[in-house]
Amino acid sequence: MGVTHAFGVPGDFVLSLFALIEASPLTMVNTCDEQGAGFAADAYARVNGLGVVVVTYGVGGLKVANAAGQAYAEMSPVVFVSGAPGKQERHDQPLLHHKVRFYETQLRVFDQLTVTSAVLDDRETACREIDRALHTALLHKRPVYIELPRDMVGVSVPRPTTIDRPVVPTTDPDALRAAVDETVGRLRAATRPVAFLGLEVGRFELLRPAMDLIERMNLPTAVTLLDKSAISEQHPLFLGVYAGAMSRPEVADYVEASDLVLLLGSLLTDVNLGGGPSRLDRARSIHFAEGRLTIGLHAYDDIRLADYLGAIAAADLPRFDITLPANVDNGATTWRPVPDAPITVARLFERLATFLTDDTIVIADPGDALLGALDLPVHRTYEFFANAYYASLGFAVPASIGAQLAAPGRRPLVLVGDGSFQMTGMELSTSVRFGLSPIVVILENGGYAVERLMVDGTFNDVLAWDHTTIPELFGSGVAFDVRTEDDLDLALAGVLERADDVVLIRVQLDPTDVSPAMRRFATGFAAAAVATAKN
Amino acid sequence: MGVTHAFGVPGDFVLSLFALIEASPLTMVNTCDEQGAGFAADAYARVNGLGVVVVTYGVGGLKVANAAGQAYAEMSPVVFVSGAPGKQERHDQPLLHHKVRFYETQLRVFDQLTVTSAVLDDRETACREIDRALHTALLHKRPVYIELPRDMVGVSVPRPTTIDRPVVPTTDPDALRAAVDETVGRLRAATRPVAFLGLEVGRFELLRPAMDLIERMNLPTAVTLLDKSAISEQHPLFLGVYAGAMSRPEVADYVEASDLVLLLGSLLTDVNLGGGPSRLDRARSIHFAEGRLTIGLHAYDDIRLADYLGAIAAADLPRFDITLPANVDNGATTWRPVPDAPITVARLFERLATFLTDDTIVIADPGDALLGALDLPVHRTYEFFANAYYASLGFAVPASIGAQLAAPGRRPLVLVGDGSFQMTGMELSTSVRFGLSPIVVILENGGYAVERLMVDGTFNDVLAWDHTTIPELFGSGVAFDVRTEDDLDLALAGVLERADDVVLIRVQLDPTDVSPAMRRFATGFAAAAVATAKN
Repeated sequence: MGVTHAFGVPGDFVLSLFALIEASPLTMVNTCDEQGAGFAADAYARVNGLGVVVVTYGVGGLKVANAAGQAYAEMSPVVFVSGAPGKQERHDQPLLHHKVRFYETQLRVFDQLTVTSAVLDDRETACREIDRALHTALLHKRPVYIELPRDMVGVSVPRPTTIDRPVVPTTDPDALRAAVDETVGRLRAATRPVAFLGLEVGRFELLRPAMDLIERMNLPTAVTLLDKSAISEQHPLFLGVYAGAMSRPEVADYVEASDLVLLLGSLLTDVNLGGGPSRLDRARSIHFAEGRLTIGLHAYDDIRLADYLGAIAAADLPRFDITLPANVDNGATTWRPVPDAPITVARLFERLATFLTDDTIVIADPGDALLGALDLPVHRTYEFFANAYYASLGFAVPASIGAQLAAPGRRPLVLVGDGSFQMTGMELSTSVRFGLSPIVVILENGGYAVERLMVDGTFNDVLAWDHTTIPELFGSGVAFDVRTEDDLDLALAGVLERADDVVLIRVQLDPTDVSPAMRRFATGFAAAAVATAKN
Repeated sequence: MGVTHAFGVPGDFVLSLFALIEASPLTMVNTCDEQGAGFAADAYARVNGLGVVVVTYGVGGLKVANAAGQAYAEMSPVVFVSGAPGKQERHDQPLLHHKVRFYETQLRVFDQLTVTSAVLDDRETACREIDRALHTALLHKRPVYIELPRDMVGVSVPRPTTIDRPVVPTTDPDALRAAVDETVGRLRAATRPVAFLGLEVGRFELLRPAMDLIERMNLPTAVTLLDKSAISEQHPLFLGVYAGAMSRPEVADYVEASDLVLLLGSLLTDVNLGGGPSRLDRARSIHFAEGRLTIGLHAYDDIRLADYLGAIAAADLPRFDITLPANVDNGATTWRPVPDAPITVARLFERLATFLTDDTIVIADPGDALLGALDLPVHRTYEFFANAYYASLGFAVPASIGAQLAAPGRRPLVLVGDGSFQMTGMELSTSVRFGLSPIVVILENGGYAVERLMVDGTFNDVLAWDHTTIPELFGSGVAFDVRTEDDLDLALAGVLERADDVVLIRVQLDPTDVSPAMRRFATGFAAAAVATAKN
C-alpha cells in the first residue's frame, strides 16, 4: 500500500512484532516518546496517503490517543497498531503490567477515536480483519485501530483468496442529476463566483478533476488555513487564504461579496472562519463536505465527491471574466535587511517568503507560527501543512519527521512557537538519528502569545530556553541566534550550507509583537474565551 | 481538601478558569506538556492524598489519557479537570477547534479511565456534582473527570447545604466475624507467618493500625516493588522486597516457605511477582485487595479493610519468635571508590544507599532504575515510590515535581534510564521554573536495557545525548558526568553544595551491564515476549 516507514516506541507486549518489522522491508522509526510517533505518522499519512504507528499496550496506546484524535478530526488515515497481552496470559494473570481497568479498556478508548478497530485474536479471521481495517482507513481517510495479542505474533493464518473491503457508499443517480442541474444552473447564473479547494479534494486525490473544472470556468480559487497550498499560490487563479475576519481585507471582501461560493471539501471550522459566526451566506453557497452536499439551504446525502465532479465536468459550463485583487508578494523579491533593526514577526515571514523553493515543505504549528504564515507564498501544491482545525500544539516538529520520510528530496521548514517547542521539540533527536534535515524556526516570545491576547496571566509564560545549546545535546546539527534582520539573513544563508543537518533558528521576538492575522484572530476568539462571569 | 497546587497547560477553552485559579490560593504549576502535568499530579496525589490536573479540551484532555490510565491502575486519586466548548457555541458551530468526533468524545474516553465523571453543564447540580466527583475519588482512591463548558465559568450557582457524598460500602458484621475468626485461627496455628504491607494500606491511611498488629505479633514484614517503603527498611521486622524469582534468594525463600502469608492491600501483579506464575501458595495466604478478602481458596466481598484490621486488633493474638535473614546493607557504611574503576549498576546503587537521608524521596522510573533500587535501604515510610505496576516510562522526572511540591523540605532523588529521559526529561524545565531541586540520576546505557534481554534489535537503542548540556539549555542547574567510581563520589559530594538547584548526574554505564534483579526479571519476562512463532 505504499508505506515504507512505521513510527513507534517498543515495549514488551509488542517486541516480537518489532523484531518482525526490523526483518521486513519496512523501516521502523523510533521516536523519543509515543506522542512523537503519533504525530510523525499523521504527517506521513498526509503526504503519503497512509501512515502507521506501532506501540505497546496501555502506556503506548494511551499516549497516542491525542494523535488519534487529531487524525480523526483532520481526516488523516493513520493505522494505530498496538501490541497487547496474550490471550492465554489474560486468563492466567488478572494483573498484567500496563493494564488500566479491563483488558478491553484501550480498545474502548480507540473505538471513540477511530472509524473502526480490529482485534487479531482469531487465526481464522485475522487476515480479513487486517484488510477490512486498512481499507476502511482509506475509504474514510480516518484512523483505524488494530490490536495484536502478543501470543498471536507468528501464528500461521489461512491466507484469504479475496480482500475483504468495506462496503463503499454509492451515488444515487437521480440525486446526482438533480444536484448537478442545480449546481450548473447556479454557476450559469453567477456573475462573480469563487471556488474553495478543501481538505477532501486532496485526501481523495481529486485535485486534477477539481482543477480541470476550475480552469475551464476560470474560477477564482481560495483556500482555508487548513487547506493552504491545495492550489499553488503562483497559480493565476489563486485568490488567497480566506479566514473570515482574519483574512487580508481584499480576500475577505472578494469572497464575501461573491454571488456563488463553491466549497469543494472544505471544513467550515471556527478557525477556518477566523472566529466568530460565519460570514459566508449559506443561501449563496454550494458546499460538499463529510459526505454531504449542501446547495443553498437544502442538502443531498447520497452523492460522492468524485461522481459529483465528474458529472459537472460533463455539463456545458460557463467561463468567467475576472479581475482578481493583486496578490500579496510579501516582498518576495525585494527583501533587504534593515541594519540593526530588531526582527519582527511580519519581517520574519516576509524574509521566509523569499526563502521558499520548489523543494520546501512548510509545516506550521498552531499559534503565530501558523497565523503569520497565512500569506506565505507557497510554490507547489501540498507544500504547506498545518493542523489548523484540531490545533494540537507541538505537532510540527515530529510532523517534519514523517513528512520528510514520505517526501525524500524535500526539506521541511518547521515554524513553531517556543511554548509548543517545549512539548515535543526533543523529537529533533529522532531527526538526527534518522539523518533528516529539518529547518526549525522557533518563534521565541516567552509563551503562548495568542492566549495573552485573550486572557493573560503568568500561566501564559514559559521558561526561557537557550535553544542554541540543543545541537550540543544531540551531538549534531547547528543553531543560529537571531535578534536582528541581519542575523536572520545570515542564518538563512548558513542554512543552505548545512543541507544535511538539523538546523535550528532561534528568533528572539518582542513578546508583544504578533502578526496582524494573529491580532485579528485573537480578537475574534477572546470573546468566547471570556464569555464567563457575565452569565 | 488539602490541595495547594494544580498542574496543567492552558488553552482557550480553559483560559478563564486558569485566570480564576491564578487569583485563588491554589498555585498553578504549568508544565511543558500536558503529559508532565498528568504525571506530576499523580505523584502529588500519592504524597498528598489528592491531586489536580487542569487542561484544555481535546488536545489537552487526550494528552493525559495515559496519566489517567496509570492513576486508575495504581490507585492514585487524581481529579482531571478539562475545559470544554460552551453549551451555546456547540449548537452554533458544529466544528469548533480541538473537537475529535462528537462533543462528548472526550467524556466517553475518560469514562473508560476514571471511576466517575461529572459535566458541569447545569447550574442547579454543578456544586453537588463537584462534591460527588471529589468524594468518589477519595472513596476509591482512583481518578475522576470533571468537564467544564467554558460558558459555565463564572455562572452563579446555588450553594448546596449538604455535601453529596457517594454511598460508602459497609462491612457485613456476620461476614466480618467469620473472617476474623478464620484469620485469627490461622495466625494462631502458624509457626512462620509473614505479612505484606500493600498499596491500599497507605492509600487508605491504615498504616498505623496495620503496624500495630504487625508489632504486636512480631510479624516479619515484606513489601512488593510497588509498595517499597510502606515499612521503613530500618525497622527490625522488615524482611525485604519480595518479587518472586527477582527477589534476593533469602527473601524469596523465607516468604515462600512461610506457612501463612497475610497480604494487606498488596496487588499481585506480574511485575510484583517477578514474572512467571505466582510462587505464593493461595491455600496458605490471606489476601485483602480491591475490596475482596480471600482466605485460602474462598473469598468475602463485603468487608472493608479498616474494619477488618480493627476487628483483628480486638482479638487475642499470638506473638511469634522469629529469626530474620540478615538484611543487605548495600555497603551503606563502607562504600569507598575503587580508583579508576568504571562505574557499574551494582556499585551505583551501593553508593546511592549511603546517600539517602531522612529527607530524601526516591522516585524510580521503570527499568533498571527501578529494579536496581530493589534493595536500596530507604529510611522512612513512603520515602520511595515508583509506578511499578502500570510502568509507564517517563514518569519519574515529572513525578518529582508533584512529589516535592507535596512534601516541601524533602528532596527528590530521581532514578531514570536514558530512554525514559528522552520522553519527559524536558519537564526539568518546570522544576527550574518553580524553584525545585531534584537530583536526577540518568542511567545512560544507550537504550531500553530490559528489552534487550528479551528481544533485541536496533529498536532498543536511543540516540546518545550529552545530558551535561541541559543546565545551559535551561539557564540553571548543574550537571555531573560520571564514568568511574571516583566521578560518582565527587558528583554526590557536589550535589550537597547545590541544595537549591536542579542537579543532573549522567552515569555512563557499559550497555551490557544490568542489575542482578534486572537479569532475573528479564529472564522471567522474555518467555512471554517471545511466546510467538512457536504457536
